[in-house]
Amino acid sequence: MNPIPAPLPAAASPTAPIPLSPGGGADGGSAPLRAVRLGIDTHHEPVVVLRADSAVCRAEGFEAHARIEVIGPQRSIIATLNILTAGDLLQPDQAGLSESAWRRLDLQPGDALRFRYAQPSDSMSHVRAKIYGQHLGEGQFDAIIGDIVAGRLSNVEISAFLVACAGGRMSAAEVTGLTRAMVQAGSRLSWAHPLVVDKHCIGGLPGNRTTPIVVPIAASLGLVMPKTSSRAITSPAGTADTMETLTRVDLSLEAMRRVVEAEGGCMTWGGAMNMSPADDLLIRVERTLDLDSEGQLVASVLSKKIAAGSTHVVIDIPTGPTAKVRSQDDALSLLRALQATAHAVGLKLHGIISDGTQPVGRGVGPALEAHDVLAVLQNRADAPDDLRQRALQVAAAVVELGGLGRGQAAHDLAAAALADGRAWRKFQAICRAQGGLREPGVAPFTHPVAAGQSGRVARIDNRLLARAAKLAGAPHAKTAGLWLAVHVGDRVERGQPLFVLHAESRGEIDYALDFVARHPAIVYLEE
Amino acid sequence: MNPIPAPLPAAASPTAPIPLSPGGGADGGSAPLRAVRLGIDTHHEPVVVLRADSAVCRAEGFEAHARIEVIGPQRSIIATLNILTAGDLLQPDQAGLSESAWRRLDLQPGDALRFRYAQPSDSMSHVRAKIYGQHLGEGQFDAIIGDIVAGRLSNVEISAFLVACAGGRMSAAEVTGLTRAMVQAGSRLSWAHPLVVDKHCIGGLPGNRTTPIVVPIAASLGLVMPKTSSRAITSPAGTADTMETLTRVDLSLEAMRRVVEAEGGCMTWGGAMNMSPADDLLIRVERTLDLDSEGQLVASVLSKKIAAGSTHVVIDIPTGPTAKVRSQDDALSLLRALQATAHAVGLKLHGIISDGTQPVGRGVGPALEAHDVLAVLQNRADAPDDLRQRALQVAAAVVELGGLGRGQAAHDLAAAALADGRAWRKFQAICRAQGGLREPGVAPFTHPVAAGQSGRVARIDNRLLARAAKLAGAPHAKTAGLWLAVHVGDRVERGQPLFVLHAESRGEIDYALDFVARHPAIVYLEE
Repeated sequence: MNPIPAPLPAAASPTAPIPLSPGGGADGGSAPLRAVRLGIDTHHEPVVVLRADSAVCRAEGFEAHARIEVIGPQRSIIATLNILTAGDLLQPDQAGLSESAWRRLDLQPGDALRFRYAQPSDSMSHVRAKIYGQHLGEGQFDAIIGDIVAGRLSNVEISAFLVACAGGRMSAAEVTGLTRAMVQAGSRLSWAHPLVVDKHCIGGLPGNRTTPIVVPIAASLGLVMPKTSSRAITSPAGTADTMETLTRVDLSLEAMRRVVEAEGGCMTWGGAMNMSPADDLLIRVERTLDLDSEGQLVASVLSKKIAAGSTHVVIDIPTGPTAKVRSQDDALSLLRALQATAHAVGLKLHGIISDGTQPVGRGVGPALEAHDVLAVLQNRADAPDDLRQRALQVAAAVVELGGLGRGQAAHDLAAAALADGRAWRKFQAICRAQGGLREPGVAPFTHPVAAGQSGRVARIDNRLLARAAKLAGAPHAKTAGLWLAVHVGDRVERGQPLFVLHAESRGEIDYALDFVARHPAIVYLEE
Repeated sequence: MNPIPAPLPAAASPTAPIPLSPGGGADGGSAPLRAVRLGIDTHHEPVVVLRADSAVCRAEGFEAHARIEVIGPQRSIIATLNILTAGDLLQPDQAGLSESAWRRLDLQPGDALRFRYAQPSDSMSHVRAKIYGQHLGEGQFDAIIGDIVAGRLSNVEISAFLVACAGGRMSAAEVTGLTRAMVQAGSRLSWAHPLVVDKHCIGGLPGNRTTPIVVPIAASLGLVMPKTSSRAITSPAGTADTMETLTRVDLSLEAMRRVVEAEGGCMTWGGAMNMSPADDLLIRVERTLDLDSEGQLVASVLSKKIAAGSTHVVIDIPTGPTAKVRSQDDALSLLRALQATAHAVGLKLHGIISDGTQPVGRGVGPALEAHDVLAVLQNRADAPDDLRQRALQVAAAVVELGGLGRGQAAHDLAAAALADGRAWRKFQAICRAQGGLREPGVAPFTHPVAAGQSGRVARIDNRLLARAAKLAGAPHAKTAGLWLAVHVGDRVERGQPLFVLHAESRGEIDYALDFVARHPAIVYLEE
């Protein structure tokens, strides 16, 4: 082998000027590619697909899952890179974009795009500080939540943030800081009334649809309760899903104001109002990880209440082995954390730790729950008493926080408003103001699930029951879900129905039945 | 509004049998879709794209980013779901798969696929336990690492695992447990020799290419050093990239054994041997998060050494403000952690905390570093003395661990083997055994970067310099990178070259020059 010459050319011109931004403008980057809409929904995280043999991939040395900056004619975003290594999905001069990338960049097909490595975000340095055990201040939470809402953090980065904050690693001051940051990142409603009541249920209990009963009771008693609710994320129905089977819920802020001015209350979907927009994004990643973080839960619940302009709020915490909160200790710890942050932000909060051992009422699914709500509001003989009692307990707490009475007196006020039809009339008036009351509808396909043996209902698994209702089509199919025929303690004979599946297609009934067959302990019978 | 009848049909047959797995076999699931290869590389994480209006999406209520089980004719995998909401990328009966999904399922185009929600993995319950502050045992690390290697955890889940283990949250026993689990998850080499030496550099220092000098020195002295190296992950060159410009490195285990039997040493790429396969996957997510976790680093380094069958290992820890390890305290802490786990697994370890304040040698990039290595091995007058000295320091430690001598005597043995040409002859013999020695080559395009002022070189930023070399094309383009003309302390005149960029295309030179122009502190001059 011959000796190899030193690679510095002896005759190199030592003073050649360094060209500034060759062919790329001040932003650097390589030749532009043409934008192609792939139509793929990757949820919040923008994804860009580049060909491995494209000039930009070769020049930049990008590799799959790198975070890169995509510079469009109007805006630039940070996206996760996927690389096309085979096939002909794209031409060499094309770049494919996911729906969220397309939307955020506000593109037209064929628009020119440039690319470069994403600069590390400041907010991730705060996340790392938290990982390494430092406490974060409000400004740091603002930066993190702001970047999450702007789509500048990937799900991998959001996961790191959630884990750094989980397992009791947040101080009370940090929970308050996170709560304020989540409010800050979205819109905040304000009301002309000094006292605005609200309620929230921690969830996990199928059929526990008290809001459409509590709001008309409170409003009929003169309280102001501009209630916004969410759609289901993991459950077979959210309050907004149920209310949507009865009236219009996607009201603008202005339309909602008119309803509240006229009737003292409303029951609308909060999703269109951009209140605490970080919350959904955090919840989705938390769900992937199946992570329950108390600090995150407190910030999630209270940020939405503060953003809604509420001054007094009742929190229902159903507690039971298959509910979201599983033990009394967990419920008490959560309530203390809620109280601490509520106090810090000037919100009056009353907590109810309620029985979360079994579903409430009979219907599980948007329309099926609406039928239960109507039965209670109409004081029908067949109305589920457990739903009525729970709604009255929450309504009494709202009445008390609203200063209309205390203890038994508050309960009596609420019960009277329900019993004498004021609540039902107020409910109809609110629905009319929101766009008209309609029938929830009934599913075309039903199938009973019968007891395989005789016995006493020992327990009902909330989670499995919710899964069965979802497999039957809830909440996507509004009339789908299930109708519960028994509660804990009931005696059943072999062959008697335990619950009836409701679906909008035969296939969905079959699919839910298959799940039920593989999970005999959904309703557990003892001799 | 009319009262609504109770939804339980009075005449429902209460004893209708529940059909088992309607139309879907014992695995349940909906009608099959036909597999389409999208050609998109999403790296390790399998992705499946389904149309929003497909029967399976509607029936299952899947949403974007859900984790779903994909059941093929041969195998089933867990994949992340993306949903096609617009366009005609897929027909209603088709399912699109990323490259990793296609590979793991071992598919033919048009194969029938079924889908269902992924069951929560046991290993994520261990990750949650760690998040909530529990210590993990070896069996739990085995489950986590096994699932990562099998592709059953998403990057979001791997991120949660890494964060749960970062920030000093791992005990020494846990680091050892993780190390063993990482070894367990891959192949493990074994050698007929009782004493097998190895070396590893923590990295972050451009040009610090001591392995191709240390291995022939050790082998020429009779030690057994079957060295496997990695390709670059974040740097402009890994040892395997540099060696690939000189000889063949992608040897099978059998071929590697023959080289080691014949010559006492080898310098091959470890990537094909499946040693500690979790390591790359963890490193990629760590890099996304820019997370440096000491426990993870110890497990990463030592798992590869144990899997390679090494008994004695020298670890070089370059320490400096722009190296991977930034302070003496960090270096000492890392060394203590390395020693503790090495002791627990029966590995003899010697650490060297070396100067990491500036690059080593002159070349940065695969072929450019090979030129430096050859100059040192050939004892050429223009060989970079800093590289020679560092290689000798590591070689002396290897010689001492190998029991051939202590202190100065070990150093003298190594120096003599280099000076009298034994190391160079051994290097040539090893390369011939691996497939033949070749010329590393020289880049067709070069461009000097000149000093904008006269002065003394005060410091060189390792990270920025590495970026410039990567933008010029390294390690993808083998002859690309840069050639450093100065070191710290050198006096330069205005217009004198500081370094010379090397590239295989004009565009890459321009791109690197643009970066250099925007980062004048790569080589910082003082008056």
